[in-house]
Amino acid sequence: MYEHFSSGLNKCPANYQSLTPLSFLQRSAQVYSNKTAVIHGHQQFTYKQFETRCRRFASSLAALGVRRGSTVTVMAPNIPAHLEAHYAVPMSGAVLNSVNTRLEAAGLAYILDHAETDVLMVDSEYAPVMKKALELSGRDCLVVDIVDALGPPNEPIGSTSYQELLDQGDAQYQGEEVPDEWDAISLNYTSGTTGEPKGVVYNHRGVYLNALGNLLTWQMPKHATYLWTLPMFHCNGWCFPWSTVAMGATNVCLRKVDPDLITRLMAEHQVTHFCGAPIVLSMLLNTSDEIRQRIPSGIKAMTAGAAPPAAIIEKLEAIGADITHVYGLTETYGPAAFCDWNTDWDEQTLEDRATLKSRQGVTYLVQEAVDVFFPETMEPVPADGNTLGEIMFRGNITMKGYLKNHDATAEAFQGGWFHSGDLAVKHPDGYIEIRDRSKDIIISGGENISSVEVEGALYKHPDVVAAAVVAKPDDKWGEVPCAFVELKPGATVTEQALIDHCRKQLAHFKAPKAVVFGDLPKTTTGKIQKFALRKKLAQNTHKND
Amino acid sequence: MYEHFSSGLNKCPANYQSLTPLSFLQRSAQVYSNKTAVIHGHQQFTYKQFETRCRRFASSLAALGVRRGSTVTVMAPNIPAHLEAHYAVPMSGAVLNSVNTRLEAAGLAYILDHAETDVLMVDSEYAPVMKKALELSGRDCLVVDIVDALGPPNEPIGSTSYQELLDQGDAQYQGEEVPDEWDAISLNYTSGTTGEPKGVVYNHRGVYLNALGNLLTWQMPKHATYLWTLPMFHCNGWCFPWSTVAMGATNVCLRKVDPDLITRLMAEHQVTHFCGAPIVLSMLLNTSDEIRQRIPSGIKAMTAGAAPPAAIIEKLEAIGADITHVYGLTETYGPAAFCDWNTDWDEQTLEDRATLKSRQGVTYLVQEAVDVFFPETMEPVPADGNTLGEIMFRGNITMKGYLKNHDATAEAFQGGWFHSGDLAVKHPDGYIEIRDRSKDIIISGGENISSVEVEGALYKHPDVVAAAVVAKPDDKWGEVPCAFVELKPGATVTEQALIDHCRKQLAHFKAPKAVVFGDLPKTTTGKIQKFALRKKLAQNTHKND
Repeated sequence: MYEHFSSGLNKCPANYQSLTPLSFLQRSAQVYSNKTAVIHGHQQFTYKQFETRCRRFASSLAALGVRRGSTVTVMAPNIPAHLEAHYAVPMSGAVLNSVNTRLEAAGLAYILDHAETDVLMVDSEYAPVMKKALELSGRDCLVVDIVDALGPPNEPIGSTSYQELLDQGDAQYQGEEVPDEWDAISLNYTSGTTGEPKGVVYNHRGVYLNALGNLLTWQMPKHATYLWTLPMFHCNGWCFPWSTVAMGATNVCLRKVDPDLITRLMAEHQVTHFCGAPIVLSMLLNTSDEIRQRIPSGIKAMTAGAAPPAAIIEKLEAIGADITHVYGLTETYGPAAFCDWNTDWDEQTLEDRATLKSRQGVTYLVQEAVDVFFPETMEPVPADGNTLGEIMFRGNITMKGYLKNHDATAEAFQGGWFHSGDLAVKHPDGYIEIRDRSKDIIISGGENISSVEVEGALYKHPDVVAAAVVAKPDDKWGEVPCAFVELKPGATVTEQALIDHCRKQLAHFKAPKAVVFGDLPKTTTGKIQKFALRKKLAQNTHKND
Repeated sequence: MYEHFSSGLNKCPANYQSLTPLSFLQRSAQVYSNKTAVIHGHQQFTYKQFETRCRRFASSLAALGVRRGSTVTVMAPNIPAHLEAHYAVPMSGAVLNSVNTRLEAAGLAYILDHAETDVLMVDSEYAPVMKKALELSGRDCLVVDIVDALGPPNEPIGSTSYQELLDQGDAQYQGEEVPDEWDAISLNYTSGTTGEPKGVVYNHRGVYLNALGNLLTWQMPKHATYLWTLPMFHCNGWCFPWSTVAMGATNVCLRKVDPDLITRLMAEHQVTHFCGAPIVLSMLLNTSDEIRQRIPSGIKAMTAGAAPPAAIIEKLEAIGADITHVYGLTETYGPAAFCDWNTDWDEQTLEDRATLKSRQGVTYLVQEAVDVFFPETMEPVPADGNTLGEIMFRGNITMKGYLKNHDATAEAFQGGWFHSGDLAVKHPDGYIEIRDRSKDIIISGGENISSVEVEGALYKHPDVVAAAVVAKPDDKWGEVPCAFVELKPGATVTEQALIDHCRKQLAHFKAPKAVVFGDLPKTTTGKIQKFALRKKLAQNTHKND
């Protein structure tokens, strides 16, 4: 019966093309050719110039032997080269791997090996740590120095420079076709809640859709001015390198999250949109009047990673700003749910509005569904605002899977839904709200810290018998790692010595901020009861109030 | 080399779902449940109610034996049942076939037979003509009467009614899965400029993408209020039944394009958006002050089918309204290109802005490309604003093909592009501009004359309301331009004065050789029926022979 609706009605180049964000660049370079695409210090590029730089970059990658399935790793702040990599790397057929700029050498070496990096691009700021990483890694890759005008003058470590790639490139390079929209476009490593970090693979289709999803969620207008407060290494900047270009927006680059610099740039370029963890918003608002008053009225902020506190919403509203609370994970291309604001709530008190807005909400338009399930039965929890379950996603803005990790992929997708590991309730209106982060993760200043990783560092100290790291609430960072440690009999290591020990092995933000010595509560099978430690910490915190 | 980016990274329900507009309804019914989805006279439905009606409708279709690949034909004005059919019919797995309400019995009979209609839904207004069509047709289908509260009390012709389908339906019906986003969702017959009408097949993927494309093009905000001035049978209302629901907009229904009624509804419901041919805009503006003054300030109009004349743009701007000029064909899901406004043009004179805006422009964000080619060589024409070629599209908002017409499909997609049949130039900025339908071009003494260009000159005359120029056979020149002109009430301009007016603006050979005054025959979408004018001219010429 269906026959006549399919016979002779096949896909062909006229009616079927891979969904890929590369088409956004092509269109914007044509239609918005003279509009400003990128601002970085005194540098400015129009869309035509931006496209030309991407094509030159991509053709040089191809000339260096990069092809379909190659990996190009980038360690850089939010500078033009990093933005350009979001187009040039897939244009050459390769996969973009942006790495967390706070990682230490061992973590970087792990990624270079696991990602099978072919080309490594390093901003001078990270040349020293990357030099160590390359020594630790067995990976033989081509290293390209990015010498940014606003970067520090560290010694180059590569065999060529980004500027040389641009100079030698072909501005007419058309790039590789995208034969299948399911093809990988980028690779983002999670911080690894347990054990080694996992490589999350994105595809062209998902990136295309979530780039549009961001625009629709935020109602982002044409030629918006977007400030790059959110790191591009974070889920590819939540897909905003592709959203902004689709709308012909101006990307204002930023090397460093610094309130004075941020608000200067906001005022100078009349920034309309920016993203960041609540801690970034808090930094901007809890500063001097002089700095805060530079923030343009009507600015729009998108935040995630933790619920925005009422005080921040209040201060933002006071300057006429607007905040959108989104939620997602590396595995969902960044934001895949948001607290879609119901205009019925406009009249509520600030406190009630803040409570409503702090919910993680409902699915993005371009995601199929987000729901809360009992993971054992895969039945939805009742929408009672009380019953706890696990947040699960399904749809086209869920990753392809974990690179070279079939088991973890199968586990994450069990039952046909992506298991987020976040525990939540569902309210009667269908909006979900996180109640408990998947217990081990510590979120500090928007960064995930794996307690297992910190514990691993502690365990390396000869005096440590047992260690457990849990999140301690912190006014500035949201959470900081707090270590509970059992020492060998007679050991005399001090709190500071253990912290220093960790700082030698880990990115500094991952080191515990406090160490509590004593016996650890354990289950009969010897598992440390972290919930008991958290309780203890909460009681102590409470006592100190 | 690509191996590790594909191995074990397969599609599964967690990370891959068919793109289908049905997901918009599901989401909006949850998130915007209490918001108004539909207004029709005194009837109003919230999103929750709208969804319930669609589910009941769909389950009744399924109960009647409708399944994947069935055809449900609808002949109705822009009323709730018609909007609901855009969800209920695909939900039941069937294909929606909305037919032009101006068709006569023979044309309808052809469609019922060709589309292999299984269920036919008819608004009472069209019961008489459809009764005749059923007698002419050999098709045995189930006929459902739509008895709209605002419709005429004609005798029913079916075996059941729409209300009965709703009453007997199951509000919990979940609908059929969409196994493949390439599956057909609707079938729209072209008017058939030559020979029989062709059945254009749309798929779920294309509809999903163009629904988003409309939102992005128009920057349509959440909870906009959309007035249904554009017929839903026209390329499924340019995909707006799906766009509006995605954004939780309010759909204001309309049985008839009548300026008094339209502006009353605009004022009463504070309409923010509407679509229509320039002639519809012209009707609204060239009316009494009382009627015109009801149009809400800031209203946004999307227009297509012909370039909006400067006078209309001027009048719209005077009431603070904004006009977006889009372009497309039935084969491209309605609009697939638009005159993406360049803010650099803001400072130009009204006349220059009108000229710029009258161009068909550039590709929709969700279409891959629109370009102008020499059809023989498939080489692009130079972007000189002068060389004529054929407009061609490629991308995901191009039809699956023509139903049961492999030859026409293959011809339309020759060379991997969809051949529009429209002749255009490409300007140095890459914007395309239609100079004519291939069949509308006038060839006079070996020179091509664009009827659109001559019409543009006529429209600049203050007394002209509507104008159409067609080829008139001529012994000496082969063809000469003949103008048909509708004047404002009370206007007294003469034939010679209008010809002189054109000769001042155009090469003399392009000026009309004759002007015929009177009402112009139009389609329901306001497109002037040039074939009828040609026929009239041929009859007259014949008589005079």
